Amino acid sequence: MAASPARPLRRLPVEPLTREAFRPFGDVIAASGAPDHWANGGAAEVFRDRAVLDVEAEGGRPCVSIVRAAPSRLPLQIRLMERHPIGSQAFAPLGAGAWLIVAAPAGPLDSRAIRAFAAAPNQGVNYRRGVWHHPLIALGQVSDFLVIDRAGDGENLTIESLPEPLEILALE
Amino acid sequence: MAASPARPLRRLPVEPLTREAFRPFGDVIAASGAPDHWANGGAAEVFRDRAVLDVEAEGGRPCVSIVRAAPSRLPLQIRLMERHPIGSQAFAPLGAGAWLIVAAPAGPLDSRAIRAFAAAPNQGVNYRRGVWHHPLIALGQVSDFLVIDRAGDGENLTIESLPEPLEILALE
Repeated sequence: MAASPARPLRRLPVEPLTREAFRPFGDVIAASGAPDHWANGGAAEVFRDRAVLDVEAEGGRPCVSIVRAAPSRLPLQIRLMERHPIGSQAFAPLGAGAWLIVAAPAGPLDSRAIRAFAAAPNQGVNYRRGVWHHPLIALGQVSDFLVIDRAGDGENLTIESLPEPLEILALE
Repeated sequence: MAASPARPLRRLPVEPLTREAFRPFGDVIAASGAPDHWANGGAAEVFRDRAVLDVEAEGGRPCVSIVRAAPSRLPLQIRLMERHPIGSQAFAPLGAGAWLIVAAPAGPLDSRAIRAFAAAPNQGVNYRRGVWHHPLIALGQVSDFLVIDRAGDGENLTIESLPEPLEILALE
């Protein structure tokens, strides 16, 4: 019996990263809207308190790290997702280019609910505790990201493979 | 009586930002040395726990903000310094260029102890509680910085003018 031809992978479209679009997953850490106040004699606009850190469960504390990520190339297959059941996790690019965010709501992983967002070099995100996300996707160059997550005892990582991969073809 | 000619300002040399050089003032938040571990199947190097957050005095909590700073031009006069007596304060550049850090040890402000550091676009710093520092100095372009500092009640800002300005002429 002849093998059936390979079915094309489901394509995951890429949306612009905005606070509204990302609300189901957490916070966008970026200057947006009106500043909350000015500082430095008017030379600086302050956008205050842009991420809800949730890292103190089970004796945890906030931890600031750098992750240096090798770049991914498009098209890119999304084969697995991870989550941190007892802590939020924030990423912000330092001197990097555009980067990609792939997320799905907390709860049982539903691959139909996975969404992808293109972030600018001055946009970070904070994944809410338990929100599914793909490991860091840097584009174009080796990129450093500042990470704010939870340090402490307890099992804080779940990884799950998708029943079948999704494919990101391009940034739009 | 003729006015005496103006005395030139004391020049503040600019040093490269390294963990060792910055130790009197706090932490450099950057990839340096060997990574603490690898992640994402080897695609990411993790430099873990690079800043000591000290924000819980007097009921404080960590607060993540964005500050958008207008660029400064060289030569630049340093006329004042500030400190946060009850909390650390971290800055990391998002999609920005090089930036300048000017700091002096905690305690009574000694303008002879002020030092300046040139930071790369992938280097952040965390000022230890009480360490004197100049307001953000972005170079070349409007620049966004992620800030991790203390939110909460209490007086957490002191500003002091220098007896006479210092001058930064160039990045080296």
